[in-house]
Amino acid sequence: MFDLLYLAPAGSLLALGFAGFLAWTVVRRDEGTPRMREIAQAVKVGAAAYLKRQYTIVAVFFVVVFVILNILVKLGNLAPVVPFAFLTGGFFSGLCGFLGMKMATNASARTTNAAQKSLNSGLRVAFSAGAVMGLLVVGFGLLDLSIWYFGLNWWYNMHPLAPGQDKIAVITSTMLCFGMGASSQALFARVGGGIFTKAADVGADLVGKVEAGIPEDDPRNPAVIADNVGDNVGDVAGMGADLYESYVGSIVATSALGVAAGLGVAGVTVPMVMAAVGVLASVIGTFFVRSKEDASQGALLWALRKGVFTSAILILIASYPLVKYTLGPGHMGVYWAILSGLIAGVLLGISTEFYTSSGYGPTKKVADAAITGPATVIIGGMAVGMLSTAVPIIVVCIAILASYYLAGGATNFNAGLYGVAISAVGMLSTLGITLATDAYGPIADNAGGNAEMSKLDPSVRKRTDALDSLGNTTAATGKGFAIGSAALTALALIAAYNDQVVMFGKTVDLSLMNPKVIIGLFIGGMLPFAFCALTMQAVGRAASGIVVEVRRQFKEIVGLMEGRVKPDYAGCVMIATKAAQKEMILPSLLAIISPIVVGLLAGLEAQAGLLIGATVTGFVLAVMMANSGGAWDNAKKYIEEGHHGGKGSFAHKAAVVGDTVGDPFKDTSGPSLNILIKLMSMVSIVFASFVISNTLMK
Amino acid sequence: MFDLLYLAPAGSLLALGFAGFLAWTVVRRDEGTPRMREIAQAVKVGAAAYLKRQYTIVAVFFVVVFVILNILVKLGNLAPVVPFAFLTGGFFSGLCGFLGMKMATNASARTTNAAQKSLNSGLRVAFSAGAVMGLLVVGFGLLDLSIWYFGLNWWYNMHPLAPGQDKIAVITSTMLCFGMGASSQALFARVGGGIFTKAADVGADLVGKVEAGIPEDDPRNPAVIADNVGDNVGDVAGMGADLYESYVGSIVATSALGVAAGLGVAGVTVPMVMAAVGVLASVIGTFFVRSKEDASQGALLWALRKGVFTSAILILIASYPLVKYTLGPGHMGVYWAILSGLIAGVLLGISTEFYTSSGYGPTKKVADAAITGPATVIIGGMAVGMLSTAVPIIVVCIAILASYYLAGGATNFNAGLYGVAISAVGMLSTLGITLATDAYGPIADNAGGNAEMSKLDPSVRKRTDALDSLGNTTAATGKGFAIGSAALTALALIAAYNDQVVMFGKTVDLSLMNPKVIIGLFIGGMLPFAFCALTMQAVGRAASGIVVEVRRQFKEIVGLMEGRVKPDYAGCVMIATKAAQKEMILPSLLAIISPIVVGLLAGLEAQAGLLIGATVTGFVLAVMMANSGGAWDNAKKYIEEGHHGGKGSFAHKAAVVGDTVGDPFKDTSGPSLNILIKLMSMVSIVFASFVISNTLMK
Repeated sequence: MFDLLYLAPAGSLLALGFAGFLAWTVVRRDEGTPRMREIAQAVKVGAAAYLKRQYTIVAVFFVVVFVILNILVKLGNLAPVVPFAFLTGGFFSGLCGFLGMKMATNASARTTNAAQKSLNSGLRVAFSAGAVMGLLVVGFGLLDLSIWYFGLNWWYNMHPLAPGQDKIAVITSTMLCFGMGASSQALFARVGGGIFTKAADVGADLVGKVEAGIPEDDPRNPAVIADNVGDNVGDVAGMGADLYESYVGSIVATSALGVAAGLGVAGVTVPMVMAAVGVLASVIGTFFVRSKEDASQGALLWALRKGVFTSAILILIASYPLVKYTLGPGHMGVYWAILSGLIAGVLLGISTEFYTSSGYGPTKKVADAAITGPATVIIGGMAVGMLSTAVPIIVVCIAILASYYLAGGATNFNAGLYGVAISAVGMLSTLGITLATDAYGPIADNAGGNAEMSKLDPSVRKRTDALDSLGNTTAATGKGFAIGSAALTALALIAAYNDQVVMFGKTVDLSLMNPKVIIGLFIGGMLPFAFCALTMQAVGRAASGIVVEVRRQFKEIVGLMEGRVKPDYAGCVMIATKAAQKEMILPSLLAIISPIVVGLLAGLEAQAGLLIGATVTGFVLAVMMANSGGAWDNAKKYIEEGHHGGKGSFAHKAAVVGDTVGDPFKDTSGPSLNILIKLMSMVSIVFASFVISNTLMK
Repeated sequence: MFDLLYLAPAGSLLALGFAGFLAWTVVRRDEGTPRMREIAQAVKVGAAAYLKRQYTIVAVFFVVVFVILNILVKLGNLAPVVPFAFLTGGFFSGLCGFLGMKMATNASARTTNAAQKSLNSGLRVAFSAGAVMGLLVVGFGLLDLSIWYFGLNWWYNMHPLAPGQDKIAVITSTMLCFGMGASSQALFARVGGGIFTKAADVGADLVGKVEAGIPEDDPRNPAVIADNVGDNVGDVAGMGADLYESYVGSIVATSALGVAAGLGVAGVTVPMVMAAVGVLASVIGTFFVRSKEDASQGALLWALRKGVFTSAILILIASYPLVKYTLGPGHMGVYWAILSGLIAGVLLGISTEFYTSSGYGPTKKVADAAITGPATVIIGGMAVGMLSTAVPIIVVCIAILASYYLAGGATNFNAGLYGVAISAVGMLSTLGITLATDAYGPIADNAGGNAEMSKLDPSVRKRTDALDSLGNTTAATGKGFAIGSAALTALALIAAYNDQVVMFGKTVDLSLMNPKVIIGLFIGGMLPFAFCALTMQAVGRAASGIVVEVRRQFKEIVGLMEGRVKPDYAGCVMIATKAAQKEMILPSLLAIISPIVVGLLAGLEAQAGLLIGATVTGFVLAVMMANSGGAWDNAKKYIEEGHHGGKGSFAHKAAVVGDTVGDPFKDTSGPSLNILIKLMSMVSIVFASFVISNTLMK
């Protein structure tokens, strides 16, 4: 019988191959005028310099952790291959970020140039580049998973395990560990990139727009290239690493829980093959993203949605026989769990859009609050963000209960947990294409910057703005998926952590009445707040470095304001790079070290409580920060469209304050929380045996 | 043998008697010039009108709940006396708020007048009035506790219980229910009063300071009386009801857990007698609060602290023999649990002061951020608030573990929980005097307003400002105690809830791996965010009502700006009153209904999860909001002292934005969370039997 699992490497090759093809269709296009090339080049150089520095620092971190993990291996706390699994997870996650960034920086001027022709042409270029990123993420994810799965299988066939040891259990628990590599890389990418992009953005705005009174993306602003670099290193490279981690994390957690549920290889096959099917569905979906020349924005949005919906439907159709054939007709509940995850993802997207689009009441109210000044804008936006947590939480809770019971949790606890885990895989199965619709936004944003700086006809900027704004809507949907899947994956990882603890022969009392659990919940509940505080402060410090530099250049470079002399763009890029690199270390270490410290000092029960507590507040806070930020951003745009006095009015100035506050909320602290909660679980899994042996509270 | 429990009613009488005496020493003083009396009279009338309306609406609520509870009695889900217990809890809580407010409004002009003589005289009057409030709270609390304890004892002596029923268990579980009355009243008082005070404050500032450019407390501002009324109904009446609830709640929860721990009557005696000892200690402490005429502010602060420290030490000395004599030498761990609670309370106060006082780095950094504008002030203040959650969380966690294990939790689970509960009682035992140092702040604030409006010599305003600023420091300490004790009390109540569930013969699986527990944690974790959103939006709406009214009066009343004609103060009071009453209903109902709905739909496990989840995020969010608000407030004051350009500078305008955002954070949403988390536990206890019988998830 043909082993369905071979579809996983096949899917990987399809994804990577098609990504290569799409990349070729993009780069063979013309980059436009020398001025456009020059600007694109500056962004390319800046982004590459940033990533080079970033990866150097992260490499040091990986070497240190690799050494620590090898010590754990020597102590007998870890299987010998785990340190290598950790390295590959980090490597591929970084590679996705790097290649995605390369693609994005190569696509922006080409998008501008294509937008000179028509809106649709611009969309095609930007979307293709976004799709490259989406496909790279799923392609490399499946590649890494396949290498380890088949490799370990082969190894243990050659070197049989001791009797009583279950091969598939050993394989899945090893694979769980490479998630830690991916998560660490992703956290650094998100935090570092997030600090860079918002420091540059806030710094550029504070001096350029507010003090000097020059427009956004004005080439005289020394921070403008840094701002564009930021979009690429934060929103593109950061997001790529982030979603690689989500994708791989949800699959390995599901596989591990499948073993606990007694599903054996079949439990691994379903998520892996679903992912492979997802690749094919995403590739097919991309062909649906096309529209007439200069179609309306509504039509374009529909074009994008058509691609996503087609993929989702294909996956749903293909999963049914997959589950039936692989798990047997007695496990059809798993199929319904997948369906519930997909539906929950869609609902999360709709909820995000409702709260952050200026087409609906909440964001309009934030814009109204601008009439009475910045304080009321801030209060209004915070309130919208806080209130907007209710629907996603309830949707995710229903998805948890539904997938748990549908998958048979009432009679088999582990089968229920498998259902919860696979609902996250269901949510992420369309990642190839949802990420494409998400990643093209920053490309369009950069294209607009290029149009502005190259002084092209305003109609071009108008088209790229339309693409950008479309990107904001699809990004909202993407954010819903990212946050929801992070919460479900984190739960799956925590369940897998619990299985690991049980496998080590340790029984823990995880009752809510256990004071160790309670203090774990408290500390875990606090950590996302502390983490957000550190990252926000980092943005503030880094931004003030940019402010000082921009002011200096305005003052010292003669002829700059008159446009006769070019500013020193690279200076700002360097300052933002250095600041981001320095500032990303403390919050990232906080995430990695706290679960280990709490486990060692207060026991495994506290550690488990910490993981759950962090997942709960991390989820709520991530939704709040993303939606507050989105509402402020769009309230400002709504006013710029001419409401409440339009650009330059008192209300507009107030809305700009809201938007600036929202920047680190939605692009630095908020999205990093998704990774934070998973990384802490991963770390706990990897260090479980060490903590069990060494905790003070046995 | 003399029954120590008789000390409880004795303590109550001492507190009430001494409160009466102090009130007499205040009211026999002179209220000052006719102008001063007139202003004080306007505030008195406004505050009384507000409270009358508030109590009318709350009375309707109490009647409805009383009927519902009687239906539960008929259904056999509740003991027949519970509905009456609910009423008395609400009545005394309301009475504390009412009398405290009466005292405060009668003391403000007298404080102003005394401050004409010297700083110390002003302090004596304001502090005495604050002490009246503190003593009323503990006096009525002990009275209510004594009435029910002795009354039920007498009743069951006359009507013996069925064999197998433990009299003391029945009594304590009935007494738990009157906590729900106190909590409901407190929540309405905090939310309604909080909305009123901040709507008036924000409304007065937005039009008066920002638009019309007149100083704070200028008599020409129509909202200025409403602002002063707000201090009384929010900070005084709201706080009185709130702390009554904390005090009573911690004692009844401890008593109930004492029964579960097998301590019998002794388990009730310790907290009740400690409270009585606390009264005596507080009375003695008040005599230490005096200083030389026109002493320095540092000396005054020391005078206040001396009072609190003396009381704390007296309680620590008296508790030792109390525990030894009542529980026996084998239970001395309970004494150390009390001590750990007291120490934790002090540390929480110090932490709050560090993060919110302009004498330390965090608030100074917020002030520095004002140089680059309002956006950076907001980001900076939010970050300080978020970061400031770490220390209190860790302190409370250590207190939980310490009190649990010191009280014998390692061998006896219930004894450990008793330790946690009694550590909250320890923290609150000095309430009589800590509340005095807290409540005198708003009185001094009002006194300052009176001085301004009566156009007294600026030296008087300077003295009342000094008192007010001193009040801010002691209020920070008070807030630390309030938040910390709320978290511990909520945990004790949740443990008591669990005992009730067990008593009803129901076993529940509260493991973190139970998906029902997980979804409960998620929903509970979200509720404080939704609650804060609702209350902040309410402040926004109510404030805009005030803004419209003030603008109308400035425009329509001829001669107002020239000071020839008085504005219509009562109009603003009425608008704020109506808005606060309307707006307080939805958030309050949310708190009361959600645990019942979740329990009915998703089972007891989800309900327990909800309570813990809400306690965790409620605690973290309460600390964050209180400290962000405090840091913004003091950063503004720091700039007003002349830093970064002083009053009227760009930095000052930015800092005012932060302060305005912080108003609802620290005075409406934040403090209400303390009550929210306890009220939800109380509701769950009262409705436990009903939910058990009717839940869809048995």
